[in-house]
Amino acid sequence: MKIKTSLTRFVDEKEIIRGKTLESLMKKYSFVSTIFLLLFNRLPKKNEEAMFNALFVSAIDHGPGTSSAMNARISASVGNSVHASLAAGILGFGNRHGMAVEDAMNFFSEHIDHADIPTKLRELKAQNIKVPGYGHKVFTHTDPRSTTLFSIAKKQKIFGTYCVFAQSIHKELHTFSSKPLPLNIDGAIAAILLDMNIPSMLGNTIFLIGRIPGLLAHIYEERLNDVGIRRLEDRDIEYM
Amino acid sequence: MKIKTSLTRFVDEKEIIRGKTLESLMKKYSFVSTIFLLLFNRLPKKNEEAMFNALFVSAIDHGPGTSSAMNARISASVGNSVHASLAAGILGFGNRHGMAVEDAMNFFSEHIDHADIPTKLRELKAQNIKVPGYGHKVFTHTDPRSTTLFSIAKKQKIFGTYCVFAQSIHKELHTFSSKPLPLNIDGAIAAILLDMNIPSMLGNTIFLIGRIPGLLAHIYEERLNDVGIRRLEDRDIEYM
Amino acid sequence: MKIKTSLTRFVDEKEIIRGKTLESLMKKYSFVSTIFLLLFNRLPKKNEEAMFNALFVSAIDHGPGTSSAMNARISASVGNSVHASLAAGILGFGNRHGMAVEDAMNFFSEHIDHADIPTKLRELKAQNIKVPGYGHKVFTHTDPRSTTLFSIAKKQKIFGTYCVFAQSIHKELHTFSSKPLPLNIDGAIAAILLDMNIPSMLGNTIFLIGRIPGLLAHIYEERLNDVGIRRLEDRDIEYM
Amino acid sequence: MKIKTSLTRFVDEKEIIRGKTLESLMKKYSFVSTIFLLLFNRLPKKNEEAMFNALFVSAIDHGPGTSSAMNARISASVGNSVHASLAAGILGFGNRHGMAVEDAMNFFSEHIDHADIPTKLRELKAQNIKVPGYGHKVFTHTDPRSTTLFSIAKKQKIFGTYCVFAQSIHKELHTFSSKPLPLNIDGAIAAILLDMNIPSMLGNTIFLIGRIPGLLAHIYEERLNDVGIRRLEDRDIEYM
Repeated sequence: MKIKTSLTRFVDEKEIIRGKTLESLMKKYSFVSTIFLLLFNRLPKKNEEAMFNALFVSAIDHGPGTSSAMNARISASVGNSVHASLAAGILGFGNRHGMAVEDAMNFFSEHIDHADIPTKLRELKAQNIKVPGYGHKVFTHTDPRSTTLFSIAKKQKIFGTYCVFAQSIHKELHTFSSKPLPLNIDGAIAAILLDMNIPSMLGNTIFLIGRIPGLLAHIYEERLNDVGIRRLEDRDIEYM
Repeated sequence: MKIKTSLTRFVDEKEIIRGKTLESLMKKYSFVSTIFLLLFNRLPKKNEEAMFNALFVSAIDHGPGTSSAMNARISASVGNSVHASLAAGILGFGNRHGMAVEDAMNFFSEHIDHADIPTKLRELKAQNIKVPGYGHKVFTHTDPRSTTLFSIAKKQKIFGTYCVFAQSIHKELHTFSSKPLPLNIDGAIAAILLDMNIPSMLGNTIFLIGRIPGLLAHIYEERLNDVGIRRLEDRDIEYM
Repeated sequence: MKIKTSLTRFVDEKEIIRGKTLESLMKKYSFVSTIFLLLFNRLPKKNEEAMFNALFVSAIDHGPGTSSAMNARISASVGNSVHASLAAGILGFGNRHGMAVEDAMNFFSEHIDHADIPTKLRELKAQNIKVPGYGHKVFTHTDPRSTTLFSIAKKQKIFGTYCVFAQSIHKELHTFSSKPLPLNIDGAIAAILLDMNIPSMLGNTIFLIGRIPGLLAHIYEERLNDVGIRRLEDRDIEYM
Repeated sequence: MKIKTSLTRFVDEKEIIRGKTLESLMKKYSFVSTIFLLLFNRLPKKNEEAMFNALFVSAIDHGPGTSSAMNARISASVGNSVHASLAAGILGFGNRHGMAVEDAMNFFSEHIDHADIPTKLRELKAQNIKVPGYGHKVFTHTDPRSTTLFSIAKKQKIFGTYCVFAQSIHKELHTFSSKPLPLNIDGAIAAILLDMNIPSMLGNTIFLIGRIPGLLAHIYEERLNDVGIRRLEDRDIEYM
């Protein structure tokens, strides 16, 4: 096995990340800037750093009831290490929870030049296909995280054609859907990343970086308060 | 990276496992015998095969309320693949659930020659240390899986000094413990494997081989009946 | 969270799997029969049990060079538990390694009634789309596992229209492909499962049950021979 | 299953993290401050934020040759999703790679008041027990990350008795060890966290938050440059 990389190299016992010494990064740059550098091979502009900071914070936690937090806590409760519990938590994400940013980015970029989006949305509805980036279990009318992200995107001069497009889809869905379908955090992140020219292949990555500390906080709380093995009570199991 | 192995080799596009062609194994041997061969570099005797068969079956499933089955189903519910959901399920095991066979084997082999086991058990109790292999959430007095495993071990002439020792610990624990501590499946598997001269390093492996099909059955049921994302309801979350 | 299940229930401290007590399964049935029962809610016929036995054995190991075995051994080498290393190994499967059985089943069942399969295959080739179930890195002309599985399927009167169809695709691919594309083990398992009326949703599950003991054997070998942390040597890393 | 939490709650469709609205955190606070708040239930002081920033950056990547990066890339190479590949990568950590921060913290806090540390270290050496936090495969004399972290700790007035103690152990080890044992990044993070009064239970968590973006960058590079399935070449496999 041979691996080619342009991320990190070692020269005379010095570690060089994307052309900068790790030492200089530790001394001069924020964690967010260093993440940006590692992924995109350049330092972020001021507004890019502010936007990425807000994107990460927006995803940081969403309570213990999510499938990812449940998995992480269940794994910790039976005596697993922090990192094994974190891996379990991450496997509680999926295209129905957190991992729809990439799908939403692809959907938006495929359809932004589509002349007749209302017809397209009705077609998807008829085929019972969910539009990625819309709908939420807890937030029924508006996902406040999306609203705040868009307001920050405006302030940072990042809000552009994709954010406008994402909002127009929301309005259109509203005209014929039986239940409210707010632009959720996956969808808002997707639109903003597209307006920042980020490749869709990195959509879910941005969400994951933001949410990992939240999963780790749940694992810590579970270990600290240790209530023993998590099990489903008999009354919550039904035999078919 | 270089790996040395004595498991499987390829000779002239033929696959050879522990000295036998895969072709001959597929045609002549049971899955259980082939597992035994792969792990121990020899085919099992008749009673060893029967015992391993019973050990694997004993562990095959324990309902959807276990932490491993919950993790597997939660992961499947958000749209993960079968293998990613299985990995999540496996990370729902831990030394408090399924993965105590190795610990119990080590405990048994360290103490079987200990002159005064009653004193030792009282010391552990005083230090609040759990004896691995005893106690169960659902089965209060006897773990029926242990009883059946021991009866099969007797029939197969495998039941020996370690099985006797495991039973004597159970009786001793009973004399001073406030709650019943049945010899659980981890403990019974541990005692039987020791009487079969299996190294303790493989204790948890035997349990895992048996339980994996159960986790996969839960994943299949979850995908088939698809009820959407698993979440903890608000009424089951309490804020501190 | 509430879970409905028809797999396993508890009645008066007895565990009942698909209507049979676990005790009776442990005493009377093979591991393979019990797996079949758990998945399909009925015991296998004799030929079904023999076929499943051969399917599991066919997948049991494929050497330390596969991505799944490498992941399992790397994880074990840094000090992880057996079950965490197994989870890592499982995450080394993917639709390019082991997890193409489901895809192949779907491809075969969609196209078996397709009048003009040669045209279809040429279309896929033109679009650079891989036909799932064909091609192998090590076996260039024939995958001997597929040959043996088909010979057992014939002997067990299971070899039917899907197995014939899978062979005809192989021949057709041969007429225009620049490199040999043997029917690989994913493809052979797929055709046999279809001839057994197994739902495609369980294709990868069958492969996983067979291969898990192999991954565990690699983990055991890695722990036993402990050569320290697995790392890629500097000479195998190239900077771009 | 019921979960008690004090991390995040929902009030009137508003998300409140540790008493602050998510909206206000997104608008006003850095990612690092928000992580600190989530874990410790208070915002960091200026020097604490600077120190945490440097700790996270120090861990961000260490090249493609580490066991965690290899696992992540191997998993991505066979077609897994970003989050499944990340879980595989995380299972490539272990107490021999990255996950020794907690152990080192426990070792330091148990022994800092130990009158005779030189004798203790010689005892461990005689028993062949590794002191957690010392030694590195690539860096032989000094781990430059540790040096830089300590210089930042001094500048931020965090460098205290534990950092001094960690250095004194390094010097002592040097007097009798046959090979150089630099204070590695796990050890340096451990000493600094102790001087910041962080509980040892969070030691590995801090490392993980820092390194996750690095694993995700490797996954991105692997998917972008897609060279197909990672396998160990035949010449790197030796049969025993």
